[in-house]
Amino acid sequence: MKRGFGSDNHSGISPEVLEAIARANKDHALAYGDDEYCERAIAIMRGYFGKQAEVYFVFNGTGANVLNIDLMCRSHHAVICADTAHINVDECGSPQRIVGCKLLTVATPDGKLTPDLVRQHLHGFGFEHHSQPRAVSITQPTELGTLYTLEEIKALADLAHSHNMYFHMDGARLANAAVALNATFAEITVQQGVDCLSFGGTKNGLMLGESVVLLNPALADGVRYRRKQISQLCSKMRFVAAQFEAYLTGDLWRRNAEHSNAMAQKLLQSVRDIKGVEVVYPVQANSVFVRLPRDVWQELQKQYFFYEWDEADNVVRWMCSFDTTDEDITNFTTALKKLL
Amino acid sequence: MKRGFGSDNHSGISPEVLEAIARANKDHALAYGDDEYCERAIAIMRGYFGKQAEVYFVFNGTGANVLNIDLMCRSHHAVICADTAHINVDECGSPQRIVGCKLLTVATPDGKLTPDLVRQHLHGFGFEHHSQPRAVSITQPTELGTLYTLEEIKALADLAHSHNMYFHMDGARLANAAVALNATFAEITVQQGVDCLSFGGTKNGLMLGESVVLLNPALADGVRYRRKQISQLCSKMRFVAAQFEAYLTGDLWRRNAEHSNAMAQKLLQSVRDIKGVEVVYPVQANSVFVRLPRDVWQELQKQYFFYEWDEADNVVRWMCSFDTTDEDITNFTTALKKLL
Amino acid sequence: MKRGFGSDNHSGISPEVLEAIARANKDHALAYGDDEYCERAIAIMRGYFGKQAEVYFVFNGTGANVLNIDLMCRSHHAVICADTAHINVDECGSPQRIVGCKLLTVATPDGKLTPDLVRQHLHGFGFEHHSQPRAVSITQPTELGTLYTLEEIKALADLAHSHNMYFHMDGARLANAAVALNATFAEITVQQGVDCLSFGGTKNGLMLGESVVLLNPALADGVRYRRKQISQLCSKMRFVAAQFEAYLTGDLWRRNAEHSNAMAQKLLQSVRDIKGVEVVYPVQANSVFVRLPRDVWQELQKQYFFYEWDEADNVVRWMCSFDTTDEDITNFTTALKKLL
Amino acid sequence: MKRGFGSDNHSGISPEVLEAIARANKDHALAYGDDEYCERAIAIMRGYFGKQAEVYFVFNGTGANVLNIDLMCRSHHAVICADTAHINVDECGSPQRIVGCKLLTVATPDGKLTPDLVRQHLHGFGFEHHSQPRAVSITQPTELGTLYTLEEIKALADLAHSHNMYFHMDGARLANAAVALNATFAEITVQQGVDCLSFGGTKNGLMLGESVVLLNPALADGVRYRRKQISQLCSKMRFVAAQFEAYLTGDLWRRNAEHSNAMAQKLLQSVRDIKGVEVVYPVQANSVFVRLPRDVWQELQKQYFFYEWDEADNVVRWMCSFDTTDEDITNFTTALKKLL
Repeated sequence: MKRGFGSDNHSGISPEVLEAIARANKDHALAYGDDEYCERAIAIMRGYFGKQAEVYFVFNGTGANVLNIDLMCRSHHAVICADTAHINVDECGSPQRIVGCKLLTVATPDGKLTPDLVRQHLHGFGFEHHSQPRAVSITQPTELGTLYTLEEIKALADLAHSHNMYFHMDGARLANAAVALNATFAEITVQQGVDCLSFGGTKNGLMLGESVVLLNPALADGVRYRRKQISQLCSKMRFVAAQFEAYLTGDLWRRNAEHSNAMAQKLLQSVRDIKGVEVVYPVQANSVFVRLPRDVWQELQKQYFFYEWDEADNVVRWMCSFDTTDEDITNFTTALKKLL
Repeated sequence: MKRGFGSDNHSGISPEVLEAIARANKDHALAYGDDEYCERAIAIMRGYFGKQAEVYFVFNGTGANVLNIDLMCRSHHAVICADTAHINVDECGSPQRIVGCKLLTVATPDGKLTPDLVRQHLHGFGFEHHSQPRAVSITQPTELGTLYTLEEIKALADLAHSHNMYFHMDGARLANAAVALNATFAEITVQQGVDCLSFGGTKNGLMLGESVVLLNPALADGVRYRRKQISQLCSKMRFVAAQFEAYLTGDLWRRNAEHSNAMAQKLLQSVRDIKGVEVVYPVQANSVFVRLPRDVWQELQKQYFFYEWDEADNVVRWMCSFDTTDEDITNFTTALKKLL
Repeated sequence: MKRGFGSDNHSGISPEVLEAIARANKDHALAYGDDEYCERAIAIMRGYFGKQAEVYFVFNGTGANVLNIDLMCRSHHAVICADTAHINVDECGSPQRIVGCKLLTVATPDGKLTPDLVRQHLHGFGFEHHSQPRAVSITQPTELGTLYTLEEIKALADLAHSHNMYFHMDGARLANAAVALNATFAEITVQQGVDCLSFGGTKNGLMLGESVVLLNPALADGVRYRRKQISQLCSKMRFVAAQFEAYLTGDLWRRNAEHSNAMAQKLLQSVRDIKGVEVVYPVQANSVFVRLPRDVWQELQKQYFFYEWDEADNVVRWMCSFDTTDEDITNFTTALKKLL
Repeated sequence: MKRGFGSDNHSGISPEVLEAIARANKDHALAYGDDEYCERAIAIMRGYFGKQAEVYFVFNGTGANVLNIDLMCRSHHAVICADTAHINVDECGSPQRIVGCKLLTVATPDGKLTPDLVRQHLHGFGFEHHSQPRAVSITQPTELGTLYTLEEIKALADLAHSHNMYFHMDGARLANAAVALNATFAEITVQQGVDCLSFGGTKNGLMLGESVVLLNPALADGVRYRRKQISQLCSKMRFVAAQFEAYLTGDLWRRNAEHSNAMAQKLLQSVRDIKGVEVVYPVQANSVFVRLPRDVWQELQKQYFFYEWDEADNVVRWMCSFDTTDEDITNFTTALKKLL
């Protein structure tokens, strides 16, 4: 496959991460998380999120999201989210199947919930015929590449808490948000009232590894059993932990995210003034959404893999990654220009 | 942690497997299995299991088992298995939660089902008050380190099929069975009537990676959605596939399994004649189960991690791995002798 | 409680139905449906729906709907329905919990799906990240008291079938639709392509009793086990069957439905010209939805129980029943007029 | 169907209960339990079980049991029960499907758990790979017609509580136990430490109606939503409540249970000395289990319906009911004698 702009999970492993896996490959280690690598990685994450944070490594983003929802909700509960949320459109109904709960979705202009949008679903409390709203979930940055400000996060968290609801953040690309906002992980999450977080690594240079970060300790009840039960307990967990250690010690996470964000800006600059290209969302993290003539994006897909986002509306997504190069952008832009 | 005999998932990654991960770490690859690494690895596995085999990579053994059960059963079905089966005792009730079905368990002398034992549960067909037996599941080698002969496998498969039931094999350690029986993977599975297989890699040298192998194509209905939905779809799947490719090209799987089996025999020889040590199951794969005085195994656990298998009965499990050394055995045996 | 317009399940039992229960109360009968009363009632229902129809009695409407969905869908499937559908708003997330599937909802002007509205969700087929659309479900008459014409039903059924999907009808009040359309049950359902039906009795004079009517025999796989498993198998089922027998032998169902529909028309006539009362949906079955000044409906609720339908919008629902009397309407209208 | 000894749910409705249904059939009543009939019936039940008792009416015994388990357990929990328990063998895996939890079963000589039998499963607490024991469930009287003494109940409750577990009683036939033990409902349940109870009515003269009685108020969290969600919320609930009111006001429950118990004793006396009849369990409630020659019970089944209990062992069950007559017993015994 050609290099391209398909997804940040089309890229490989950051060299530092691969080296960390290799370094961890000696002797024996207890399985299932009772090893020194996990201990160190969790300590590092507590350095970012605070001492009260509980960290549980899982395999993938769906696993992290579903485990978080499972800790917040029982089956008669509902999670309010944007209709573009990963939990709604990209997990094949996993929350419904695994947790048995309901998602209450809201259409948004840019992938972002607002208090007013959430309020549409804040009714029916105490009425036994209705699923009970129990959590608000946002994605930061959103699936449309947009960002919540710290104030916007806090407003949503406060609204949730004022209704005795939890507040979840899907942070599969949280590093991209942190560099874009020039804010710490804690400032984006626990300091604004996030109760639990899906904290990603895979999309920013890990081979494989995500985590559930519980910032509200009330959510930890039964978490180990439930992680196991939904088949997200890794046996040789040291190799996931070692990746996180390499990722979060020093500034690897920051360098990678800064790079992919910067490449998205560069791609934006390269295409925004091309006639026939219409940028449809603000480019605030590492993805660029554009509207293109149908024959153009279809032709371009023959050379580069990328997702049509809204086929009917001719909107496609181009995503930059920690390993995107200037040359990638030049070549891609050249190909695009030829087609227009 | 000291090197020890805790589990074959306490060992690390076979060097060849780690090298394969590193080699796969270049350029971009499509995510979720649509890449050349997956294509090659699946082709290799079809070389072992036959062209009709469908292969789906997953993260871990619980994921493989639950996905297989989910393909065989709906919630009103039941799976007949030994009461020592991993699906019964080591998956925190995942089959019940994820599939919603029932396990019908049987006590066995050695971890092995027999047709007579299975027949205890072959009743109630058509009676709407009873969960309907739909599958028989065996583990090869068993959780007690014992082996089914090819004839024994066939007899169970035939019995299952004669009742319109499927036959599943949990082959988390299938390589150990293959070398012990001097049989091919196909001879142990598809040729005896196995409908679906959980084929493991993690316990024999992979960093992480298991697979669902569907030998009966009727089971494939909906498999891709269901793998995704139970959160077992890996995004950067090339890195799982590359491990399997390294594992199954050439004889790495065989060398590793031969080694761990041989080490178990060596451990057996070293301890069987020690007064106070009673070997409780035939040593046919890579584990040794012994009964020891309580104070002895408890003291030995302070030096070496291993699992008590039946605490009340003072039975413990010692497991050898692809990286177990002669020195490991000598040191361990010496420590044991000192305590007796 | 005063007599009122709260719901057609606030009324009691039709005298003929109660007599049938009493008549069935002699000697012994086999439990769980293997009795002569069930045999007769099912034969009568086949007279209405055709010989191929399979009939399964259940306790309540949620049970009927969930069992139907359970027969059409596995957990990776989705059901397309109006956002006002009973399965979406009035079953506390039962389909999500019990079946594990997803509902894909559509906003409608009048509670009715149209092919264009359904098509919004007809995409993503074959994409493993998305729940797969598997059924379209409509309510006839709708929760807003509106009716699908036979042609509209057929168009939706055809659309569903052309995408390899099933077509379900929630007919909790099907009798009201039949009399309003002057059509037979078969004409409304099987003849237009309905695959499975929730056929109600409770809201039209039964004490308690609903049924799952499978018009497409392909859906019957496992139905008996699944009814039992979701706790909808009645032991003394003769007493449910006897009610359906009384309801469907002769014209009781028709008389009751004609009466409640006629009472709704009478109520409509009585209030439509009152200043301050705005009728918001066509009155086609037995309910009347009106917009009223907030203080008026709140005051009126102190005298008569009825549901606010959209509190923010000051829309309330008045529902007529088989036992609504002229006097009920006169008294109610008088009370309303006093408040306006 | 002939009158017989098939089950206590083959009998019909006690006349007093049917009259109560008829009496409740006037005017309108709020649906879903918010009516005066439910209020009165619940008050009466609190008179029996104590003021703290919370009562929730449901349709059937499986519904009552599953709702109770759902309130005690999340999916990573397990319920310890006899392998003959209704929840294990007669609910088609409903607890596994609906709650997702595991049942840990124990073989018993007489259908009764003992502390020693329960202790077999009291291990693995805190080990994330194992389902966590969370409840002990007994049936009183058992499915084999045997009874727990008050002391035996207390011992089991104490054992459960000492392990931070709940204690559930399936009292589908609790009235039969109360008269046999000459004890009040409270003495059998709350006074011995029962946390929650499935309290039956159907098998002792109701048309249809069971209840969940929460004696430990900690279990009530979410109960209304969960009853609705598992489709056990009755709309015209007054007709269930009215039955319980008739059943529990005065001594109807007692008279019915005394009668069926007495008939079982009479049946026992009539057959115990017949050569070829072997009574296999103590007759302590309203059922008689006997071993008979195979050709005899098979021939007898042609004249009278009854269940083979253990076909391989030629054990059958004969069950008496509130409407069993002396003549029924005489005729049945005569038929049996003819065959022997």
